[in-house]
Amino acid sequence: MFYFNCDYTEGAHPHILERMMETNLEQTVGYGEDAYCEQARALIRQECEREDVDVHFLVGGTQANFTVIRSALRPHQGVISAMTGHINAHETGAVEATGHKVLALPCGPEGKLTAAQIEETVKAHWEDETHEHQVQPKMVYISHPTENGALYTLPELESISRACKANGLYLFLDGARLGYALTARGSDVSMSDLARLCDVFYIGGTKCGALFGEAVVIANPELKPDFRYSIKQNGGMLAKGRLLGIQFLTLFEDGLYYDICRAANELAYRIAEACKTAGFRFFAESSTNQQFPIFPNSLLKELGKDFTYSTWAKVDQDHTAIRLCTSWATREEAAKQLIQTIQKLGENNL
Amino acid sequence: MFYFNCDYTEGAHPHILERMMETNLEQTVGYGEDAYCEQARALIRQECEREDVDVHFLVGGTQANFTVIRSALRPHQGVISAMTGHINAHETGAVEATGHKVLALPCGPEGKLTAAQIEETVKAHWEDETHEHQVQPKMVYISHPTENGALYTLPELESISRACKANGLYLFLDGARLGYALTARGSDVSMSDLARLCDVFYIGGTKCGALFGEAVVIANPELKPDFRYSIKQNGGMLAKGRLLGIQFLTLFEDGLYYDICRAANELAYRIAEACKTAGFRFFAESSTNQQFPIFPNSLLKELGKDFTYSTWAKVDQDHTAIRLCTSWATREEAAKQLIQTIQKLGENNL
Amino acid sequence: MFYFNCDYTEGAHPHILERMMETNLEQTVGYGEDAYCEQARALIRQECEREDVDVHFLVGGTQANFTVIRSALRPHQGVISAMTGHINAHETGAVEATGHKVLALPCGPEGKLTAAQIEETVKAHWEDETHEHQVQPKMVYISHPTENGALYTLPELESISRACKANGLYLFLDGARLGYALTARGSDVSMSDLARLCDVFYIGGTKCGALFGEAVVIANPELKPDFRYSIKQNGGMLAKGRLLGIQFLTLFEDGLYYDICRAANELAYRIAEACKTAGFRFFAESSTNQQFPIFPNSLLKELGKDFTYSTWAKVDQDHTAIRLCTSWATREEAAKQLIQTIQKLGENNL
Amino acid sequence: MFYFNCDYTEGAHPHILERMMETNLEQTVGYGEDAYCEQARALIRQECEREDVDVHFLVGGTQANFTVIRSALRPHQGVISAMTGHINAHETGAVEATGHKVLALPCGPEGKLTAAQIEETVKAHWEDETHEHQVQPKMVYISHPTENGALYTLPELESISRACKANGLYLFLDGARLGYALTARGSDVSMSDLARLCDVFYIGGTKCGALFGEAVVIANPELKPDFRYSIKQNGGMLAKGRLLGIQFLTLFEDGLYYDICRAANELAYRIAEACKTAGFRFFAESSTNQQFPIFPNSLLKELGKDFTYSTWAKVDQDHTAIRLCTSWATREEAAKQLIQTIQKLGENNL
Repeated sequence: MFYFNCDYTEGAHPHILERMMETNLEQTVGYGEDAYCEQARALIRQECEREDVDVHFLVGGTQANFTVIRSALRPHQGVISAMTGHINAHETGAVEATGHKVLALPCGPEGKLTAAQIEETVKAHWEDETHEHQVQPKMVYISHPTENGALYTLPELESISRACKANGLYLFLDGARLGYALTARGSDVSMSDLARLCDVFYIGGTKCGALFGEAVVIANPELKPDFRYSIKQNGGMLAKGRLLGIQFLTLFEDGLYYDICRAANELAYRIAEACKTAGFRFFAESSTNQQFPIFPNSLLKELGKDFTYSTWAKVDQDHTAIRLCTSWATREEAAKQLIQTIQKLGENNL
Repeated sequence: MFYFNCDYTEGAHPHILERMMETNLEQTVGYGEDAYCEQARALIRQECEREDVDVHFLVGGTQANFTVIRSALRPHQGVISAMTGHINAHETGAVEATGHKVLALPCGPEGKLTAAQIEETVKAHWEDETHEHQVQPKMVYISHPTENGALYTLPELESISRACKANGLYLFLDGARLGYALTARGSDVSMSDLARLCDVFYIGGTKCGALFGEAVVIANPELKPDFRYSIKQNGGMLAKGRLLGIQFLTLFEDGLYYDICRAANELAYRIAEACKTAGFRFFAESSTNQQFPIFPNSLLKELGKDFTYSTWAKVDQDHTAIRLCTSWATREEAAKQLIQTIQKLGENNL
Repeated sequence: MFYFNCDYTEGAHPHILERMMETNLEQTVGYGEDAYCEQARALIRQECEREDVDVHFLVGGTQANFTVIRSALRPHQGVISAMTGHINAHETGAVEATGHKVLALPCGPEGKLTAAQIEETVKAHWEDETHEHQVQPKMVYISHPTENGALYTLPELESISRACKANGLYLFLDGARLGYALTARGSDVSMSDLARLCDVFYIGGTKCGALFGEAVVIANPELKPDFRYSIKQNGGMLAKGRLLGIQFLTLFEDGLYYDICRAANELAYRIAEACKTAGFRFFAESSTNQQFPIFPNSLLKELGKDFTYSTWAKVDQDHTAIRLCTSWATREEAAKQLIQTIQKLGENNL
Repeated sequence: MFYFNCDYTEGAHPHILERMMETNLEQTVGYGEDAYCEQARALIRQECEREDVDVHFLVGGTQANFTVIRSALRPHQGVISAMTGHINAHETGAVEATGHKVLALPCGPEGKLTAAQIEETVKAHWEDETHEHQVQPKMVYISHPTENGALYTLPELESISRACKANGLYLFLDGARLGYALTARGSDVSMSDLARLCDVFYIGGTKCGALFGEAVVIANPELKPDFRYSIKQNGGMLAKGRLLGIQFLTLFEDGLYYDICRAANELAYRIAEACKTAGFRFFAESSTNQQFPIFPNSLLKELGKDFTYSTWAKVDQDHTAIRLCTSWATREEAAKQLIQTIQKLGENNL
């Protein structure tokens, strides 16, 4: 059985485990104040081309999301998100559990927000006579890539960023799969763009080669004070914090992060190409490691014999959108077998 | 200037103030444990035709809503509501501030939910493999009348109640304007129906003749324990609790609650009739004291010279839905003048 | 039976009810934006001798406390209070329910904090290497008078205020019974002192002659933005907000607030004097309308025949501290009878 | 420099890292539903001698504490803890951030609660007429060993458990360092005792040989439903959940957990013995891997030249209690050097 259902079915890139082994018996201080964390921070600041950003390491994505949001907002303020945004759809209401409403806006299958939507939402709030009876929009949450694999272009990000600044909103970018975005074919967005355009964002480790871990980058000075209190209060302060430092250090000291994500993207493109050639449509356009082909239900059983996939959406009575993911760990051999099977299913589908 | 913008522009029905005067110097215990509260509870139990319901008096509607919801739900559970539901749209995120997501469902201009929607939502949750990553639906919130003046029929309420019971959901009915619903022409729903069909509901005082106050009726024994702790914790326990008892006692001892709401409905019908006759369409069908005619923007200034109204929704570039409300305090003379003005505007509108 | 157990056993001072009667049929806008609220705000600003304070009217004390605290603090910050502080002991954890720890400090029977305690607490926090693992003190909550009837002197308040400013803490004064404090014999503190020394405080209405209502005065500009959103979110925004305006207007337009509290204090002093003369000790020194004599348990039954009192604390096996309260509504005749009974009990006690 | 300041200065026991290496490329499902987690659960159930307990793996201790507490309590309920309890003193108010008050009780330097204290607290609550104005005690939190290294005896745990059951309280035991407790000289408590006496407890991994991870064991069926929703909502659901399974599997399949903790205890005893012999007093009696000797401030600088320690408490002007910890990773050679230094310091101290 080959797993294509998600990008966290294996452990970590071997370099990471090796580094953990090598350093295992070294003694360090805890809670992210060790030398490895410091080195990893320095590398990330370099990627950001900004010495003035704060970098904090958290264990997981949901944790990173609600810790950032809770720390930034006052109680009556909410966060704008696409309906399909992870914070709105797949975190068991973690943001609401911190007291904040997710102001969910409609979006297409790509799961993207537009600057125009943000401006309208904010305008509508302030123009309503009863706005004090409504949650005040104060932050915009976007995922890059989105939950459905789509990317924002640099001009899109720039206009969203402008819309946020013009309206006093914080821009928070969820980069759970950021590596795949930055290395996607045709992507015009770099890490330093994010550091310039966002108030805060995070660089995903868990789904990009690490055992676990997300690096929160805070660019806006308003959001910096006391963030370590927030990490601790929200259960994200790892006692052996160096485990996070070592992982991000390994990922960024020689471009490993980009290399493994780029390679995964390439395998995903070959799988997508096979789907297209075989005549399958797509639920959403994705240029990253997650692909969302639509299969007739009748073929899913056959596909499922040798491959795991995620059921994504019911398209109609007879068709289902599924998710196929690659990662640093996907072996070319497995991808080839999947492609062959897709070709065969395509023939059956004629 | 005549106020038709809402139903809380005056104080309280004179009988209520008189009773407060009469009893002002009596000494009672505090926090809702006095004899007046007891009498009011007994009267409400009578209306419910159930001796076994718990009755608690709170000061306001938002407070009643979030106190009930917070008290009933576990942290990972959410409450289903129409998009237009008061808890979703007009309480500054008070429910989210207690940690719970409002699971907002689409609805028509009437603002009603259907049993089918509820069933689908619950089914979709449990069928999703990742339901543990989503907020668990556990309560249904409906308003009767809705925020847009519409009513549920008894069969509709019965099927919603069945859907809730069948799926282990609590049914919570917000009766901020319950008096207008129960006395609307053609209404087939009584207070005892609510006590039979809901797990918990509240009887609105503020908008139905009282200075302030809402009576929460808890029918489901699971929701009864320790509710007074919740009232106190959420800031709703009035020191001079008898003020609430005296008001509900006055409203229910001889049917005053129904009489004043029925009279307000009748005035509203005459205003609605005038709108129809004058050729104005309606934003939503309402058979209660709130009416939502659509006016050309060009006529609103004229209307606004002598009458206040609430702007409800932008219908198109040139038209706006407005709210006109009557209440116990609306004088027939004022309604007549409004009707004449509407007639005049209708002629201008031809 | 005469009630001396608390100061909210009757309705409101007759002037307040009369004014409600007179204005009952006037039409006003809701939610505290009417002319009566404006007038009441102006009067309170005058008392404060500051035109720049914000004044908001809330319904009750617990509500006022947690709304102010939640609005002011970030999630990892806490509020310092005496162990006996109302927020720590008698609000069902309302402050914690908003997510904040009450940092409770030991205190004597008077229930007062000192500037030195505050400074030590803050110093201890910042000197601890692990302070990020602890709640950050950011606000000081004091009651004036305290829950046990004691008063801060002006020099004490000034040094507490200085300690707060020097350490970046907000000073919040709970004035649920403020009228009794300001008019106590020997008091050297005025309302304008509070407006000068506190960041935020509230003027209690419920226990000082109103039906209900507390006026929150915000002096620190940092705490002003969006406070009305907070009121709404926390269930404290009264639809018929003018009811609060009318009450505070009546209390402050000609000094009624001070007159009735001063009179209540005077009756309390006579009762206290009687206790002393009769040989009873006191649980705490109080120069306000609440008095805390210690009675042998054996005499409580006799006392309870004609008078209600609150049980305050078990002093030892055989003695209990009780609370006896006066208010605007205490009739001299009732006080005299109580005094006679105390005298009689004193003789039995010899 | 040798680190004795805490028990999380290294990575993980080598067996754990080896197992991670071996399994790194295996593909498994996520979120703790893989075969390794299942095996680890089975082993823990065996230790508990109960097949019916639920076992969940979380990443850290603070997270485990507030997730358990939030999941178990209703909003108006609180958790009793010793003043020195980790949830009260060192988690940045994480429990309060979930809305619950920690009902902190005084305790001696050992940091233990007694059954009598619990009973008194509960009795005092229910006997107070105003208990609805207070947080309702519903859970007892104890640490074993305590934060100061002390142990409960089996009879003590039994009487606490009885007190909880008799009063309808849940007993929650924080076992962040449980391994050291269970293997301490003279300890009469086993894992199966905990499964019998507690409603819920957790087995600490982070401080007992794992990279990270805590195993929550739920014995009371009332606390089982939907706990996985709670884990996800609170940010504790690790995508690569098998990392937790693999670690606990390694720790429990052949008694490694006990072996490494026992060995660490033995080194700690030798260090404690050296302190005693050298004439140093102790802040608290500890029979586990943390020792709390009191040193004259004048000697700390000398000690700190080669060894790290934690400053624990200021004992008087001239003396400080410090913490010295051993762990699975402490080398005998390092302990010997520390002992020699202590002996030397003791001679200087005469």
